Amino acid sequence: MSRVWNFSAGPAALPESVLRRAAEEMLDWQGKGLSVMEMSHRSPEYTSIFEKTRNDFRTLLNVPDTHEVLFMQGGAVGMNAIVPLNLLQGFEQAAFVNTGAWSKKTSKEFSKYGLARVVLDNANTRADASSACYVPECGALLDRVNGQQMAYLHYCDNETISGVEFTGQIEALASLLDCPVVADMSSNILSKPLDVASYGVIYGGAQKNIGPAGVTIAIVDKALLNRALPICPSAFTFGTVAENGSMYNTPPTYSIYIAGLVFEWLMEQGGVAWAQAQARNKADLLYNTIDQSSLYNCPVRQQDRSRMNVPFTLADESLNSKFLAKAADQGLVQLKGHKSVGGMRASIYNAMPLEGVQALVAFMREFEKSEA
Amino acid sequence: MSRVWNFSAGPAALPESVLRRAAEEMLDWQGKGLSVMEMSHRSPEYTSIFEKTRNDFRTLLNVPDTHEVLFMQGGAVGMNAIVPLNLLQGFEQAAFVNTGAWSKKTSKEFSKYGLARVVLDNANTRADASSACYVPECGALLDRVNGQQMAYLHYCDNETISGVEFTGQIEALASLLDCPVVADMSSNILSKPLDVASYGVIYGGAQKNIGPAGVTIAIVDKALLNRALPICPSAFTFGTVAENGSMYNTPPTYSIYIAGLVFEWLMEQGGVAWAQAQARNKADLLYNTIDQSSLYNCPVRQQDRSRMNVPFTLADESLNSKFLAKAADQGLVQLKGHKSVGGMRASIYNAMPLEGVQALVAFMREFEKSEA
Repeated sequence: MSRVWNFSAGPAALPESVLRRAAEEMLDWQGKGLSVMEMSHRSPEYTSIFEKTRNDFRTLLNVPDTHEVLFMQGGAVGMNAIVPLNLLQGFEQAAFVNTGAWSKKTSKEFSKYGLARVVLDNANTRADASSACYVPECGALLDRVNGQQMAYLHYCDNETISGVEFTGQIEALASLLDCPVVADMSSNILSKPLDVASYGVIYGGAQKNIGPAGVTIAIVDKALLNRALPICPSAFTFGTVAENGSMYNTPPTYSIYIAGLVFEWLMEQGGVAWAQAQARNKADLLYNTIDQSSLYNCPVRQQDRSRMNVPFTLADESLNSKFLAKAADQGLVQLKGHKSVGGMRASIYNAMPLEGVQALVAFMREFEKSEA
Repeated sequence: MSRVWNFSAGPAALPESVLRRAAEEMLDWQGKGLSVMEMSHRSPEYTSIFEKTRNDFRTLLNVPDTHEVLFMQGGAVGMNAIVPLNLLQGFEQAAFVNTGAWSKKTSKEFSKYGLARVVLDNANTRADASSACYVPECGALLDRVNGQQMAYLHYCDNETISGVEFTGQIEALASLLDCPVVADMSSNILSKPLDVASYGVIYGGAQKNIGPAGVTIAIVDKALLNRALPICPSAFTFGTVAENGSMYNTPPTYSIYIAGLVFEWLMEQGGVAWAQAQARNKADLLYNTIDQSSLYNCPVRQQDRSRMNVPFTLADESLNSKFLAKAADQGLVQLKGHKSVGGMRASIYNAMPLEGVQALVAFMREFEKSEA
């Protein structure tokens, strides 16, 4: 068996040691004679797995007692509705920062439940930017909400499709609006330390930096647990999920177990501080390779470049298929860019070792040379 | 390694051959060098897995072209809200058959969105029944809806907690009400052939007869795809999920893969006809053992007894702990009854072989003898 370097944007590569342990424990978890997949979610065995997983996640992100950690379903796309359904009681509007496809999808879905106020939008000022994808400057936004009270301010911390990572002062924006911050961190959660206390809600689908698709983690300020609309489905009501320890309905038990193995692995590596340093190294190596070449180009402004998703184009687009085929021959897979951006995209989440990025840049240099 | 006989009500036992194959393929699916868990849901590899899984499910239940098969998230508890959100456009009421804890939960959740008309209720006539748990006779129900048009008639085909399986004429009831039937089949789907065409919606959480917790299958009449309320979350809108081939958001990819392995296994055994015969054999063996003993008693009326979940009590309740401990010593686990029913419960879904039930009844007889 030869494992490939998998640059998929999600579901994405997992640490090999995690997969190895999952395979070993598949038929018989710790001598109990059954698979984790077969365990009742109420059994003592599964309860121990679940509580360790939740505790490890809290430890990794240093989640304060003011915040609940919930394990839910439906992914970030589900959360686009679940968040307003949970936070709009007593409010009619919320504010949105649009930095790309995912944040736009979020504000669009919100419109089913209230008035979405887009306070920053890179689409509106694209012509001013030095490149196609970027985070807009945090300018005068208050005039865009006309003095109305916002339920919350939503932004996407990392745009997976365009490869834009938010580095602006989101807390300062929220402070101006006097409302909590809601962050979609699906594609960069656990890649850096966070001041969780400064967020109302942080959520993420698992399939990038956490584990298998099908589990969604939400970190929710306890002060926001009782703001659900009466039409919010019980299974997706933060307060109900919190009261029942994420077991109001049967949780995605096996996916949570795998997430727990990923958390253990991450703690062994050195936690989110290690992840942050490793992400910087990998991203620098890849962006430097792109910037130093005449074949490759990155469409994202320098200061807004994602450490997780690196989109790049080839000066000669007719070489795209050849690039992908030759890369695949060397075990470098899932490099095709999103159809809305074109070119290539290398997603380099926590589980992608530096070695994998080194293999990619070596191939890129070799390919450029062969086509020169 | 010694595998136990796992009588959990869900998540529940899976076929050992499925777990074995999942373990073998964990790090390297069919020589592709990556785990199914790591595959992009848009990749050709995963697409082939997904389409085979969906096709096999359609084949197993002989799903006609008039119906879509959707892979969703949130389980049956989520569906309690998702179904009304999808079917209430143009309606204000729906009819409900209450046969136990799960169907009661369904009508209660419905009340967030419309007026629930309970047309049959075993709680209302409990005193008339020969035992505590049963399906009420299908009597005069029309007077309970006062001539109003119902959006649909909902019932739960198998009540996991009380061990009651519906065998009444649900189609006849729906015909009287002139509305489609919606069935919660979470705990007995794939255990018998179905006339799918006669249902509006059939849904089930996977964690009993299908696969791991975290995937929900919905079979939806195409004629019902455009009845969603405007407040229905996009990720949970039948029409949207159908248009996008269950990939509007990232599906729970690995859980669907395991479900696919279960479907393959079931087809090898002989499909739902085999499952039906096997379920009958196992249930008969267990109920006969209970009925022939003076220690064990089943609280469910004969004709309403579930083939999937067999609750039974001990004449001397002080023996409960001893029974459970001795059973566990012999590798018979997860037999404790639901707290609302007490006593014991043996869940014997498709993946529980006859051999497991034989081991259980041998132990039950031995225990009764030792306590005589």
